[in-house]
Parts: sequence; C-alpha cells; structure tokens
Amino acid sequence: MTDTATNMRLKLPIACFILEIILIILFGVLVQYDDETDARKWHNKSNSDYDNDFYYRYPSFQDVHVMIFIGFGFLMTFLQRYGFSSVGFNFLIAAFALQWATLMQGFFHGMHGGKIHIGVESMINADFCTGAVLISFGAVLGKTSPVQLLVMAIFEVTLFSVNEFILLSLLGTRDAGGSMTIHTFGAYFGLTVTRILYRPNLDKSKHRNCSVYHSDLFAMIGTLYLWMFWPSFNSAVTAHGDDQHRTAMNTYYSLAACTLSTYGMSSLTAHDGKLDMVHIQNAALAGGVAAGTAGEMMLTPFGSMIVGFLAGIISVLGFKYLSPILEEKLKIQDTCGVHNLHGMPGVLGAIVGAITAALATTEIYGNGMKDVFPLVAEGEREAVQQGGIQAISLAVTLGIALLGGLIVGFILKLPILGAPSDTICFEDSVYWEVPGEEPGHEDQLTQVRTEEAEKLNS
Amino acid sequence: MTDTATNMRLKLPIACFILEIILIILFGVLVQYDDETDARKWHNKSNSDYDNDFYYRYPSFQDVHVMIFIGFGFLMTFLQRYGFSSVGFNFLIAAFALQWATLMQGFFHGMHGGKIHIGVESMINADFCTGAVLISFGAVLGKTSPVQLLVMAIFEVTLFSVNEFILLSLLGTRDAGGSMTIHTFGAYFGLTVTRILYRPNLDKSKHRNCSVYHSDLFAMIGTLYLWMFWPSFNSAVTAHGDDQHRTAMNTYYSLAACTLSTYGMSSLTAHDGKLDMVHIQNAALAGGVAAGTAGEMMLTPFGSMIVGFLAGIISVLGFKYLSPILEEKLKIQDTCGVHNLHGMPGVLGAIVGAITAALATTEIYGNGMKDVFPLVAEGEREAVQQGGIQAISLAVTLGIALLGGLIVGFILKLPILGAPSDTICFEDSVYWEVPGEEPGHEDQLTQVRTEEAEKLNS
Amino acid sequence: MTDTATNMRLKLPIACFILEIILIILFGVLVQYDDETDARKWHNKSNSDYDNDFYYRYPSFQDVHVMIFIGFGFLMTFLQRYGFSSVGFNFLIAAFALQWATLMQGFFHGMHGGKIHIGVESMINADFCTGAVLISFGAVLGKTSPVQLLVMAIFEVTLFSVNEFILLSLLGTRDAGGSMTIHTFGAYFGLTVTRILYRPNLDKSKHRNCSVYHSDLFAMIGTLYLWMFWPSFNSAVTAHGDDQHRTAMNTYYSLAACTLSTYGMSSLTAHDGKLDMVHIQNAALAGGVAAGTAGEMMLTPFGSMIVGFLAGIISVLGFKYLSPILEEKLKIQDTCGVHNLHGMPGVLGAIVGAITAALATTEIYGNGMKDVFPLVAEGEREAVQQGGIQAISLAVTLGIALLGGLIVGFILKLPILGAPSDTICFEDSVYWEVPGEEPGHEDQLTQVRTEEAEKLNS
Repeated sequence: MTDTATNMRLKLPIACFILEIILIILFGVLVQYDDETDARKWHNKSNSDYDNDFYYRYPSFQDVHVMIFIGFGFLMTFLQRYGFSSVGFNFLIAAFALQWATLMQGFFHGMHGGKIHIGVESMINADFCTGAVLISFGAVLGKTSPVQLLVMAIFEVTLFSVNEFILLSLLGTRDAGGSMTIHTFGAYFGLTVTRILYRPNLDKSKHRNCSVYHSDLFAMIGTLYLWMFWPSFNSAVTAHGDDQHRTAMNTYYSLAACTLSTYGMSSLTAHDGKLDMVHIQNAALAGGVAAGTAGEMMLTPFGSMIVGFLAGIISVLGFKYLSPILEEKLKIQDTCGVHNLHGMPGVLGAIVGAITAALATTEIYGNGMKDVFPLVAEGEREAVQQGGIQAISLAVTLGIALLGGLIVGFILKLPILGAPSDTICFEDSVYWEVPGEEPGHEDQLTQVRTEEAEKLNS
Repeated sequence: MTDTATNMRLKLPIACFILEIILIILFGVLVQYDDETDARKWHNKSNSDYDNDFYYRYPSFQDVHVMIFIGFGFLMTFLQRYGFSSVGFNFLIAAFALQWATLMQGFFHGMHGGKIHIGVESMINADFCTGAVLISFGAVLGKTSPVQLLVMAIFEVTLFSVNEFILLSLLGTRDAGGSMTIHTFGAYFGLTVTRILYRPNLDKSKHRNCSVYHSDLFAMIGTLYLWMFWPSFNSAVTAHGDDQHRTAMNTYYSLAACTLSTYGMSSLTAHDGKLDMVHIQNAALAGGVAAGTAGEMMLTPFGSMIVGFLAGIISVLGFKYLSPILEEKLKIQDTCGVHNLHGMPGVLGAIVGAITAALATTEIYGNGMKDVFPLVAEGEREAVQQGGIQAISLAVTLGIALLGGLIVGFILKLPILGAPSDTICFEDSVYWEVPGEEPGHEDQLTQVRTEEAEKLNS
Repeated sequence: MTDTATNMRLKLPIACFILEIILIILFGVLVQYDDETDARKWHNKSNSDYDNDFYYRYPSFQDVHVMIFIGFGFLMTFLQRYGFSSVGFNFLIAAFALQWATLMQGFFHGMHGGKIHIGVESMINADFCTGAVLISFGAVLGKTSPVQLLVMAIFEVTLFSVNEFILLSLLGTRDAGGSMTIHTFGAYFGLTVTRILYRPNLDKSKHRNCSVYHSDLFAMIGTLYLWMFWPSFNSAVTAHGDDQHRTAMNTYYSLAACTLSTYGMSSLTAHDGKLDMVHIQNAALAGGVAAGTAGEMMLTPFGSMIVGFLAGIISVLGFKYLSPILEEKLKIQDTCGVHNLHGMPGVLGAIVGAITAALATTEIYGNGMKDVFPLVAEGEREAVQQGGIQAISLAVTLGIALLGGLIVGFILKLPILGAPSDTICFEDSVYWEVPGEEPGHEDQLTQVRTEEAEKLNS
C-alpha cells in the first residue's frame, strides 16, 4: 500500500513544520495577552477575581473543546477502516486551525494598537472557526490526504474570518451559535470542495465506505458529546448573565425535541420500521444547529422545540432522499452527510433567527435588548431591519462559501498534495501504520494456557 | 428478523410524533423563562451577572447531563449484541423524559401564576427524573421495545414527580442527591415492572445475555463517567456555597472507599480470585448512590468513607448471591442488576440520611443549619423528628415505586407495544439496521494491496 | 491460567480491606472540613457564596478527574489483551492513591491545630499526586499484579509528598502544573522501578505487547481527554483571576504547536512516511507536560508554542530512537514510553520554568508578581535566584525519584506480591474473568433468523 503519490514522508513533515514555524513567528510578532490574562494589566485594574472572564466562559470553552476533538473526531469513526484517520486527521487539522484562526480572527476584529489581544473568548472563537473546517472535513472524509486537509484549512479559516467579519462587524448580524458563520458556511464550502473533487470511480472503494458494529458505537460517543455540550456551544460567547443561561436552555429543549422527531422519522422511512444508526448519529444533532442563531433571543422553549422538531425531520429526509440525488445528479459525494446535519439545519437556523429578530420588541426584551440587539437598543436600527440584515447575511454566507469552495477545490486538485486513488479511499493503511486484525481470543487463551501449563510442568 | 409484533414502522413514529407534539403544545401553554433566563426580568433586577444561577449550577448540570447520556447509555453496552439499543434507547427515552419531567415537576412545584418557570435548576431536576427512568430501563434492558419504554417513561416520570412532591414539599424531606427519590424509586419501580413482565423462557436468549471483550470496555466508559461526575450529581441542587462544596467532597471520598471494597469483595467472591467486570462496572458506583441523601449534611469525609465502604460490599454480595435468588425464587429478571447498584445502596443511603439528620445540632451546623435543615433551623421541627420524617419518606418511596411498577408492568404487557419474543431478546437487529461483522483486516489489506498492484501495473 | 503465585483470592482482598480500614481510621482521627466546606465555619464568615473556592476550582477539578480516570486509564488500553487491567487497575490504584495522598499531603502542608483541613484544592492536589503514580504505572504496565501496584502507590505517594514539600514549602519552588513534582518524579520513579523489575525473558509475551485496531481507538479516547483538559490541569491550583486564565491559555497553545511537530516528526521518522499511532497517542501530549512549570508565568503564547513545538520533537525522537536503546542497553522496559511523554518533556518543562523565572521583572508582572513569585515580590529573593532554585528543584526531584524507585523496586520483587511470570505478561485473563471472543455476527444472525422462523412456523 505504498505509492509515490500518497507517500507523506516529505510532504507532511514539510507542511507541519513550515506552517508551525510561520505560526510561531506571527504569534511572536502580533499576539499579546489581553487585559484579563496579563499579570500586570489585570492587577492594575481594581477588579475582583470573580470578574475575570475566565470564570464566565472557561467551562463553556472546555465543553466546546470536547465537541471539536472528541465530538467531531469520533462522530466520523463510523467508517470501518478509517477510524485512525477520522480521529487523527481531525486532531491534526483542528490543532492547526485553532492557531491560524487566532491570528485571522484577531486580525479582523481583535487588533489593539497593532497587536492581537487574546483570552478565553478568542480561544472559543478559534475553536468555533475550527468547527467549520471540521464540517467541511466531513464532506470530503476518506478521499483526501492530510496535506490536502491542511491546505483546505489554511484557506477555509481565512474565508471564514472574512465572512464572520462582514456579518458580525460590518452588518451587525447576530449569530452567537453560528448557524450561518459556522454550520452553513462549513457545510456549503465543504460540499463545493467535494463537488470539485468528484471521483467518478469512487465505487471501487464502496466496500469500505460503510460501518461495522463497533465503529457505530465509537461514532455514538461523538454524537452524544456533541448533543450534550451543544447548549454550551451556542451560549459560549453570548453576553454574561441571562443571555448565556437562556441560550443554553433553548438549545437543550431544541435538541430534545429534535431527538424525538429523528427517531420517529428514522423508523418511518427505514426498512421494516427499523432505526438507522446514520440518522440517530447525525439528525438528532440538527436541533443544535438550527438553534444557533436564535438561541440567544427570546425564542422561548416552545419556539425552540418547534425548531428542533422540524430540524430533525428535515435532516432525516435529507439523508434518506436528498443525499442520493445530490450524489447522482449533482455529483456531490458527501461522505458524512454534512448537508443534512449542518447545511439545511444551518439555513433553517438562519431563517428562524431572522424571523425572531424581526419580531423583537422592547416589551419582550426590556433592558436586555442591549445584550441581544445592541443596534436596535441604541435606536440605530428597527427590529424588522435587523431581521432583514439577518436574511442578507445568510445570502452573503452562502455566496462566500460557494465561491470559496470552488476556488479551494481546484487548489486541492494539485497532484503534489497526495490524494489517494479511487481504489484506496476510506482506508487507514494508506497514511497510517495499522496493526493486525483482532486477536482470536480463544487461540490466545489456548496459547497462554499451553505456555502456562509448560511453565507449571517445568 | 422481521416480525409483525416487533415491527415499529407505525408504532414508533406515531408514539414519537404524538408525544412530541403534545409536549410542544403544553410547553407553549404552560412554560415561561424564569427570572434568571428572561431578558426583561433579569435586567429589571439590579443583579450582577455573577449572581445568575447559571454560574453556580451549569457546570454541575453538564456533568449530570454526561452521566445521563454517556454514563447510563454506555454502562448498558456491556451486552454483546445490544449496544445500539442500550445507547440508542437510552438516548430516546432520556430526550423524551427530560421534557415530560419539566412539565410534571413544574406542575408540582414550579408554578407561578399558572405558569411553569424554568431555568438551570429545573433542567438539572429534569435530568434527575430522567435518571430514575434509566435505572428502571436497566432492569428491563433487552426485553422491551422502544414503544414500551416510552410508555413506561410517561408513567414513571409522573409517579416520580408525585413521590418527589410528597417528600420534598409535603414532608420536608432532604434528598439532594436522590438516594430515595431517584435511586430507590427507580430501582424498585423497575424491578416490579420486570417481575410483571417475567419471561419463563428467557434462557432461549441467554447466549446473547453476556458480554464480549470490547463491549466490557465500552461499558467502562459509562462506569467511569458516572463515578467521576457523581460528586456533581449529588451537589447539583444543594444550596450555594459550602453546601455544594461539601456535598461534592463527601461523595468523592465515599466513591473512593467504595472502589476499594468493591475490588476486595470481587476478588474474594469470584472464581480463583479473579476480578469480575460486572462488579467493577457497577458496585464501585454504589458509594455515590449511598451518599445521595446525607452527602449535603455534615457527614464528614470519615462518615462518607464508611458509607461507601459498606455500599461496595453490599453491592458485590448482591450481584454474587442475591441476584440469582431473586431470579430463581422471585422471578425478577434484573438485566443490569439495578437492585445491587441502585436498590440496596439507595435504601442504605436513605437510612444513613435519616440517622445523620437525627444527629444534627446547632453546634455542628451553626448558621448553615438553614441551608441543610431549614425546618429545624426555623424551629418547626426537632432534628430527631427530621430523622423520623426521612425514614418515613423511604417507606413512602418504596410504596409508590412498588405499586406504580405493578400497574405500569401490566400496562406494558399490552401486545400492541411490540415486545420482542423470548428468542430474540438482547438482540439489536430486531429494532435496528445492523451492519455486518468486523472486517477481516487481513482480507481487506490483501484486497487493497491487490487493487493497488493492479493500479500500479495499469 | 490459574497459578498459585498470581492467584489474588486472599492477597487482593486483604490488601484492599486493610488499606481502606486504615484510611478510614486515619481520616476519622485527622481530617476535618476546611473553612469553605464546613457549614458552621463558612456561615460564620460574612462571605458571599460566589467567594467560595468551589466556584473557582471545581470545574478544573472535574477536568483533572477525567484526565486521571479516563485519560490515563484509556491511554493505556492500547494493548490488545490488557484493556481490563489498564482501565481497571488504573481505577483501583487511583481510588486508593487519592485517599492516601489526602493524608500525606495534608500531613506535610495542610495541618491546622493537629488536623488536616480539606476542600476542593486538596482534592485537586490528591488527584495530582495520583497522576504521578499512574505515570509510574505506565512504565510497569502489563508486568505487575494489582497488589504490587497498591504497594508501589503507598510508597510513591509518600515520597511524592516529601518531594513536593521540599520543593513548594522549603525551597519556594513554583510548579503549578507539576512538570517536576508530577511528571519528572512519576516518570523517573517508574523507570527505576521497571529497571529493578527487569525481565530478561519478556519476549515470551511480546506477541501480546502490541495493539489491535480497536484498542488503538480506545487509547485515542484517553489521549484526547488528556490533551483537551491539560489547560485545566496546569491552571487548577494557580492563583485566582489572571493566573488561572493565563495558565490555561499558555497550555492550549503549547499543546497545539506540539501536535503539529508530533505529526511532522512521526511522518518523517516512521516507515514509508506513514503516521505511527504510538507517537500521536503520546507525543502530542508532551506540550502539556512541558508547560507545567512555566504555564502560570508570563511565558507568552509565543513562548508556549516554542516549548510545545520542541516537546513534540523530543518526544517522537525518544520513542523512535531512545526507547530501544534504553531497553537494550540499560534494561529499562518502559511499556508505555513514559520517558518520552513525561520524563524528557518534564525535564524540559523544569528548565523552561527556571529560565522564565530568572527573567521575571516587575515591569512584566506588575502587581501580579505576588501571585506568581511571592518571594520575589516580597523582596526575599531575586528573580535570578528563583531561577536557580527552580533548577536545583529539578535535581532534588530526580534524586528522590531515582533513589525512591530503587528501594521500591526491590520491595516489589517480594514473591508474595504475585507478579505474573514472563510468559503471561500483558494478559488480562491472569487477573480477570474474561469473556469469550467477539461473536461471529453472521452466525448469530443466522441463528436468530432460524429461531425466528421456527417461532413463526410454530
């Protein structure tokens, strides 16, 4: 299974070392502690320790961190022969992307006197940006080399930051949980990339493009961590106080409702009324995606549950009926079905956010308006206008994702990046030293017993 | 493996959709944000953001959440052919139960002007109630359809809330970690249900009612998360400050002591002094159950360790000697041994709680008495009376659990609910699309190498 | 596989029960709640609840707790036939060590009027001490009985506490994340023990001293939890406010940089440019170890990334080139390669800490100097002196670890402790009831289908 094209001996070390050295130099030149992490600056202020943002956001950061590394990583281990790559490449590109995102996001909205100031909030935002890259990874899973993935991450992080800057800073869009900036962007970017990388002969690897019993259980670890910690994801960077509290609760109920509609739809559409693990592993999470924009708003638990309920239905229907069409007609080979988990539910979330924003009134929000819709609270904008801006933001996001994915897709076609051939997709042993098969326990036991008997006899 | 009785194509979708739609309607009519999650109400008060209950309880909530979905879910994956159902049905009924529990618990003790007010504390309580349902699930694991489990959850959540109301609101019982309300209730309810559902021919499925090597490792993921986060479970809804702190610490030491007695007893009672994974996976957790009532009291680390030490011994003895008797003589088929992990240790915890309460003095508790025993602090009750009430509460809990389990057991016997026949218990493929066996890696490697060779030659 | 020597029927129960009873008695005599966990004492002070140390440290404690039980436990499950023992013995000795560490550490630096006062900070420190024992466990993994491990833990916890006392209390060394006290100590102690326990005929078990596909995935669960939560580990006991915040962030960037250099080095050194799971599972964590001392200092993200980058390179080179030499020439059989993950990166971390301390100025730290270098802030010591003390502390740690390991190694050779013979190392079934091999799913399905057909026909 060695091949000049996929051999990484020079390509991967060069990519890792050069990228990391560039990152270190840029951090040395540009990055500084912010007021809450710098010893001198923090102690110059007459703060109480409990005012430090660390105590408001670090538990949420850790939950997000688990979603990025365990959640995304293990969700993709469902493939029978691609577990090392799923977890391992997820690990590699996330570790790269979070550093690069710190610089890119800092460049666009964290500059203070020519320096990027960082703290727990920038760490969360870096993890968020990484999430978008991992969503795109899900679309191309099994068909790309680690060097291709690193190149994709370089460009995607940059484009993500541009889109985020346009939305949050220029347009004043609200998108705390990233229905648009993270999920819609990551999904449609990745789908465009996988379309450009279309492989007409991928069916030569189709016997490996499926799960086995234990790989589905590993994937459920990923699913459940994403599901459990999504309330932390959506609330991680909302305003302190009621906002974080409300966002977490809205997401909790959206996910619960989504889970019931997912099970119902899976049983309704699958063979003989049996449940399909692909639906459970993915569609049950759509409620978190769809609550990403409106989660911080006064959506109410009632509204959250409706959103989650619809998201689960849409997502299962997507897996069942839309994905095969996308593959056959549009030649989009979406390994993990990110269109169903992140694409459509992200668009749903953006629309729900626009509507909820348009309906905001001072009667409902009171003095809390300034946390959720600061421009409306300051009188610079009507709620209806805010809703319109939210809708425009969705269009902007889709445009940048599609255009960016198109360009990056063609870049990734460069032969030097070491893509696997059609016959060896979804196969760990192309890029990893893979140990042998499971031991025959009985054989081993027999062997041990024999050795033991010999020992006792001797 | 398709069967009219167990076919879920109509039953499960109907159950999921009707239940979720009812839940959504009831949430729309009854549920509101509380003062800490509502934008207007929170900002009307002159609070500091760090006063928001979110920062006191959300990290504990997330730990409890992990216990419910990963802890209970993976603990039950020890069965070789029931991993999908263990994790998957756990996921389904938990997602349903937490919504239903929000309504039921809110109805009994969260009504404000005809509306149920919710926030992070109600979310924790909903997860707690869900925990009781999952304990009962452990007793009937492998022998019930998902529709039966949903029906069980409907009734059990309701009865749980009634019992909780009687104890906490009417009797003024203290049970922050739920030795009585969660563990004793869930276990004896489930044991009664499984008694009513007794299957005389279950041995036809006994070859699947056991573990394999990797399924035991998956189960250890569940065990360890329950073990690690039990301090958060017991302290999640205790009073702010010293109370949460003390409860977590008491539980930590109770569990540590329990682990040592579990390993000792397992080695002492098992074949040839070898350790039994069933004991380690379950009995090592009994220390958390047994510290559920007294954990918030001034039990001291010393007292906590004695309680944990005894709980581990009782639990292993239960697995070794009592469970076979219960099955043979009383016809109680307790798949996960919940009597040993939740039943007896729950009763022990209730008794310890009653004794510790009876011994409370102002000398020990000082002004902290009002947090732990408010009725004693207000002079409405002597400490000894509080202890008596605690003991009575155990009896009430047992009564409601047994009576409720009896009724619900008979309801679950309705043939329409789709229970599997005796020959197909403990089998995922009855309700799930199950992928094929593990790939023969060598075969696959050979195949890939061959394909690769062909490619290079062409 | 039963053998008088390795039979644990009497040895393990006696060890567990006697140790736990001694612990309980000592806790009864010596241990009390501290001011933050005692109901009376806390309420005597006019504290606000949010001042309780619980809210500053408990989330970090829980992350550390996950690292100890899931992180270390699953990291060691990479061995194909030693998963039960890896997770299970890790569980046992950790549960013992944290209780014993509470006493030992309390004895050396927590005595108040003859009593040991405990709270969340002592719980974290107990978990830290346990971490050192588990590092040593990694060196001897597969070659020791549970009774040997308990005996090792008794002595190692004691020596750890002595070393920690000398460094932190006598010398005024700073080592919040334990590069010296935890990692260097645990590694060199364990390496000395495994040297003394050298087995010339260990190759008789070498066919089991390797991984299989799924065991490597289980190990990645351990790796990722250690990686994700290392920022919490290093910051768990630093001062409140900017210190915890800064330490977590420095560690986050150190780990990210380490991951990239690990992947680069692994691909560069391994066969055909393929990645080696052993490197990914271990070396990617070296950045956390190496930031253990300097993490709380003003190391800057830039400095942290350089440290992590170097740590990853050193660690992979150690696995590739140094470990074989240590085994062949020095007869050090280091099962998990703890020298590469904890030993060398720990020494690196100590050196980085000494340099960073020596470079501390009031200009950089401002009033925050008193949190990080209290003796420098009080004028008792120059920064350069502090740096010198840090370097001396490394030497002290190495000395105590090597001498202690030497003595304890010989104690562990006592035949009564039940070490396995050379032919049955790395084998669970020596100490555990092990279930049969994986079911042939197709066989099972056929069987079920047949039974089902019979049922329908009947």
